[in-house]
Amino acid sequence: MSSQTMGNVGALQAEINDLLKKSVRVLVVSHIDPDGDAIGSQLAFASYLRWLGKDVVSLRDSALPDKYRFLQGSESIVAIDDFVIAGNIDTAIVLECPNLDRAGRVGSLIGEDTTIINIDHHADNDKFGHVNWIDPGASSVGEMIYDLIAVPGYRIDTATAEQIYTAILTDTGRFRFSSTSPKAFQIASELVAAGADPQKICDSVYYNMRPSAMRLIGKVLNSIEFHRDGAICLLNLTRDMLQSSGAEESDSDGLVDFALFSKGVRVGALIKEAGPETTRVSFRSRDGINVAELAARFGGGGHIKASGCTLKGGLQDSRKVIIKMLEEAVDG
Amino acid sequence: MSSQTMGNVGALQAEINDLLKKSVRVLVVSHIDPDGDAIGSQLAFASYLRWLGKDVVSLRDSALPDKYRFLQGSESIVAIDDFVIAGNIDTAIVLECPNLDRAGRVGSLIGEDTTIINIDHHADNDKFGHVNWIDPGASSVGEMIYDLIAVPGYRIDTATAEQIYTAILTDTGRFRFSSTSPKAFQIASELVAAGADPQKICDSVYYNMRPSAMRLIGKVLNSIEFHRDGAICLLNLTRDMLQSSGAEESDSDGLVDFALFSKGVRVGALIKEAGPETTRVSFRSRDGINVAELAARFGGGGHIKASGCTLKGGLQDSRKVIIKMLEEAVDG
Repeated sequence: MSSQTMGNVGALQAEINDLLKKSVRVLVVSHIDPDGDAIGSQLAFASYLRWLGKDVVSLRDSALPDKYRFLQGSESIVAIDDFVIAGNIDTAIVLECPNLDRAGRVGSLIGEDTTIINIDHHADNDKFGHVNWIDPGASSVGEMIYDLIAVPGYRIDTATAEQIYTAILTDTGRFRFSSTSPKAFQIASELVAAGADPQKICDSVYYNMRPSAMRLIGKVLNSIEFHRDGAICLLNLTRDMLQSSGAEESDSDGLVDFALFSKGVRVGALIKEAGPETTRVSFRSRDGINVAELAARFGGGGHIKASGCTLKGGLQDSRKVIIKMLEEAVDG
Repeated sequence: MSSQTMGNVGALQAEINDLLKKSVRVLVVSHIDPDGDAIGSQLAFASYLRWLGKDVVSLRDSALPDKYRFLQGSESIVAIDDFVIAGNIDTAIVLECPNLDRAGRVGSLIGEDTTIINIDHHADNDKFGHVNWIDPGASSVGEMIYDLIAVPGYRIDTATAEQIYTAILTDTGRFRFSSTSPKAFQIASELVAAGADPQKICDSVYYNMRPSAMRLIGKVLNSIEFHRDGAICLLNLTRDMLQSSGAEESDSDGLVDFALFSKGVRVGALIKEAGPETTRVSFRSRDGINVAELAARFGGGGHIKASGCTLKGGLQDSRKVIIKMLEEAVDG
């Protein structure tokens, strides 16, 4: 079988559907630490395979985040530790994984004889499949699957509509990122017509915080500070804030995004007391400031607009170092 | 001229376009305290009228919120105090106003001989126009205007696409409310294809807060409290919080929405110290609790899911009264 990438999408989709026709037992997996696109795509694809009459093995090597449990069928994705191998897997559908490591331990179930179908929208996908359908122009893998399952006779039900809507909603950052294309909106339109409920899904994903997480947001926002006439926004997170709010470590995920909510902010950072002599810093930027480069100075990394690093040192000492660096970046 | 409502939308649109053909000097106005739909619709309609070759008088009786100043042409809406009457207005386009009072003092420019075209999506519109096109099924007036201006030869440019996109984005609560219809998404798709930039518009509208407003959010969230196992969420706003954050009164708009961000909250309230003996309360609910009825007990009003009222009494006394009432509402 020839490996294909990009090129004629229609031909790739047809090749994938042809391979599925011949398959018997099909593994479906998406990436560890799954997001809405990973889970929504995996559920929609598994549902399509069941309609095709396949023996479906849908697995995960991560806990399912609470906020996605409203998706019908979410409990049908089996944790790999609960999976009992019974029979040969002839085909593996790997979704939204730039490389096979991202599938976690589920990847180890893919044998030499297994045909790997790699479906992803990350430009840096390393094309580990026998068929590689990589579309960096797609808002989400959910969008790609919506196209793939548009075959005669298959009707998208409400459950599948909500799964794919969740994939598009979350991977476009609630219709905000540059991936929010005319096509993404067009598919959203068709999914709502097919029964997806925008308010239910939005509230389940975004307005479903634990009270402790809300308290933590309050404390962190209360620590907000601005430097250089508002071009720099800093948020601070101490161990005491975590403890007094009753929040968990994971509740601080995404808090750094608040640093760019203000007008005029060019670079924002969340400075987190990770331990007595360890400080974790997350950066966000707009307006061309390269925070990947800033994080790299401390052995960290990331993207131009989003990065992170860890400093050896307490919160107050680290703050001074970070503030000085950000002031130079803004002044420069 | 016969007054028409609902019924055949195509016929109404044709009637409006016919009236516009005969008109010379056309007033366009939307409601006071304008939101994204009011401003976006007014700009898009004025632009269409200019293309039709009309003498356009686009007026407002409210300040233009900063967050909508990114819209091209926003400065072309003239404040009524700066307007010098010069010539007869034969036609008035009144947008998103359930009654003519909502147009503020601009309504007084509409004379006996002026033909009033009333375009709105509020079901309780009182049909004050000569032509009344009221579509409660439309996500926004922007959506209705998108249909109206789909005439041969008229091409929606990037500026108009962004104006109508802003109208739909804001009136659907960022694609969340039940008004987020297949049609709303379909039009969003076409507007992005026509040049609207979802990220630019989203960031301009939602991520454009003043530093003082961010500080205020931090302080208010830091005051968050839960009652009845998290079914009730209260936020408190004191004069001291406003002063110490440097925020303005208007910065507290929308803060009550945070009260429904937590899982399990059925009713939320923002309790605001408006004066030494005056407390303003805003309510939000889901799950069927009627907060219009709760607000009415104190002479306030609103909708089932969103309402407000003013109590005579200081913050602490009012808090006790409100908490007791909400506990009874949740227990009942």
